[in-house]
Amino acid sequence: MRVFDFQINATCRHTAARCGCFQTPHGPVTTPRFMPVGTLATVKGVTADQLATTGAQMVLSNTYHLHLQPGEAVVEAAGGLHRFMGWQGPMLTDSGGFQVFSLGDLNRIDDHGVDFRNPRDGSRILLTPERSMEIQMALGADVAMAFDQCPPYPATENDVEEASRRTHAWLERCVTAHTRTDQALFGIVQGGCFPHLREASAKAVAGFNLPGIAIGGVSVGEPVEEMHRIVRQVTPLLPEDRPRYLMGIGTLREMAVAVANGIDLFDCVLPTRLGRHGTAMVAGERWNLRNARFRHDHTPLDPTCPCIACKQHTRSYLHHLIRSEELLGLTLLSLHNLTHLIRFTSAMERAIREGCFAEDFRPWDDDSPAHHTW
Amino acid sequence: MRVFDFQINATCRHTAARCGCFQTPHGPVTTPRFMPVGTLATVKGVTADQLATTGAQMVLSNTYHLHLQPGEAVVEAAGGLHRFMGWQGPMLTDSGGFQVFSLGDLNRIDDHGVDFRNPRDGSRILLTPERSMEIQMALGADVAMAFDQCPPYPATENDVEEASRRTHAWLERCVTAHTRTDQALFGIVQGGCFPHLREASAKAVAGFNLPGIAIGGVSVGEPVEEMHRIVRQVTPLLPEDRPRYLMGIGTLREMAVAVANGIDLFDCVLPTRLGRHGTAMVAGERWNLRNARFRHDHTPLDPTCPCIACKQHTRSYLHHLIRSEELLGLTLLSLHNLTHLIRFTSAMERAIREGCFAEDFRPWDDDSPAHHTW
Ligand SMILES: [Zn+2]
Ligand SMILES: [Zn+2]
Repeated sequence: MRVFDFQINATCRHTAARCGCFQTPHGPVTTPRFMPVGTLATVKGVTADQLATTGAQMVLSNTYHLHLQPGEAVVEAAGGLHRFMGWQGPMLTDSGGFQVFSLGDLNRIDDHGVDFRNPRDGSRILLTPERSMEIQMALGADVAMAFDQCPPYPATENDVEEASRRTHAWLERCVTAHTRTDQALFGIVQGGCFPHLREASAKAVAGFNLPGIAIGGVSVGEPVEEMHRIVRQVTPLLPEDRPRYLMGIGTLREMAVAVANGIDLFDCVLPTRLGRHGTAMVAGERWNLRNARFRHDHTPLDPTCPCIACKQHTRSYLHHLIRSEELLGLTLLSLHNLTHLIRFTSAMERAIREGCFAEDFRPWDDDSPAHHTW
Repeated sequence: MRVFDFQINATCRHTAARCGCFQTPHGPVTTPRFMPVGTLATVKGVTADQLATTGAQMVLSNTYHLHLQPGEAVVEAAGGLHRFMGWQGPMLTDSGGFQVFSLGDLNRIDDHGVDFRNPRDGSRILLTPERSMEIQMALGADVAMAFDQCPPYPATENDVEEASRRTHAWLERCVTAHTRTDQALFGIVQGGCFPHLREASAKAVAGFNLPGIAIGGVSVGEPVEEMHRIVRQVTPLLPEDRPRYLMGIGTLREMAVAVANGIDLFDCVLPTRLGRHGTAMVAGERWNLRNARFRHDHTPLDPTCPCIACKQHTRSYLHHLIRSEELLGLTLLSLHNLTHLIRFTSAMERAIREGCFAEDFRPWDDDSPAHHTW
């Protein structure tokens, strides 16, 4: 397999689900697969060795955050993101677009790019498609994301159309500016909740013949059914032989529905964010480990889970750590939540291979056999 | 070797330094050895697996803190401290005395015990020698410490004499109350900075024929030379064939001087506390990793150190983590600092065996050959 090839190894006869393998310079990514987020070149509270035990393959990092701290020059001088953070597996950087629009102190936005204020020192920063490519090439992840404009939800048809038009124009400039051959550039489909705009965006982005395509502009506040509708509509318009990445989604049910519709990759900050707030994802529920009911519960957090929080500790101990505001509690719950999501995507992969995906995972619900077996 | 035997395997011809092996129900402790502190049944920010990589053998935990949260009943129901925290090596609990006097909202202290207010809920707690033994037996560490009264520094001769007298009377009650045969009870020598009180205390505590003896009432604010003087005076009065534990000491120079005077065991919260504040112990110095001079420094923190912070990361990355207030920075620096101190005590052990301790480690200073070799 050549680098950035995507090989489909199994498909579901009843749904659009498929198992694939995406080849990167830092090894393969087997799909479907959840990708942990390491915003600042660290998955919060987790060492690279621990991260490997969760089943993580591709790890995300964040162009906006890394540009502000420590700056891409430092990462480049370190030999790139992999060396800087000590993760030898595949990596992906987002374009910074989403963060500029959601976190930045926006000054001006036009076809040229986005002018915003550095929240650290008040200085002005201009981010353009060219600049985003420059930064991501310096960071050196295996996959760079196109610089796009993600409209908020809700937004008017006019605003979404404008953002889509700009996203496609910027994608053309990204393709021109992106010159690293050991790094894949993924395009991003926008179009909000307007079917004709989603269709136009899917076709426009697909036309660039890139090694992978993401569906963006989801998980921005829209109803979950709306997101499912977008996925159902968009994926058939994308090339079959490229990985499809649904941005910002990381709950079991949503991932199962998306995989059934042909999505391959996911990311979400939820598992580590919940972990840092003392919440564990168990059996489709969220458990607040601070709750007194765990004080005397000397059983494993999730007896089916192979993570160190579940294998080496008990609910009572995790409760104690969270109650005592011990750092270790946050690390252990983050490790558990990451393992939980990744192993769910691995279970879907296995089910697709074994021909039982449609029965076990569509739709994901509490009565599904997979609930008890994966 | 029977459990709680202490076997001396090598001695220094020029100093009182010795290598020993203290047998516990959870395995041997080879000395000299630094013991990490896991106050609340967790070495802050470090998993049990990571702790094992630092070379840790015996790990401390805290009776006062564990009594308040989660309570010894929870730990006992979990199967004891080892199971509760997932550490299968030797463990030691302090008696709670030091914390009651230094952290507690004291209500009354008399020969019976100490009455203090629970800082969590304002309730009154009575801690006596019997109660401390009860709690420590429930916690189930391999070594329990006698409940003592540690006078502050400075203190009048009268106050120190009173505290010593009480410590010896309490030790007798501890010995009577302590009935677990799979747990050793260590006595604690007090006496402040008064040589005749130290002598009397050393002789009184030695008279109980316990499996180990600690020197307490040090590292409470006295000048470091005073501490060395106490160690020089007290150790010759202690039985040779029992481990000697110098409480609360964990700097290279102080440990080297103490080992030269016949001390075997050390503990200190400093390595993890410094780590949580972004400070690394390197080559006898303390480096604040927040410092801008590390931003572009892509070399290992300490090229001689085998810890994951040094083997897998750079000063630049650690600087970035600390600057970004990332949890991982605190974990990595804590691991490094623990490794640093433990490996220093291991180096002393090796030097004693190889007959070069006096040359390499007495006194510890920057010009010592050991500085470059351990
Ligand atoms: Zn788990
Ligand atoms: Zn190190």
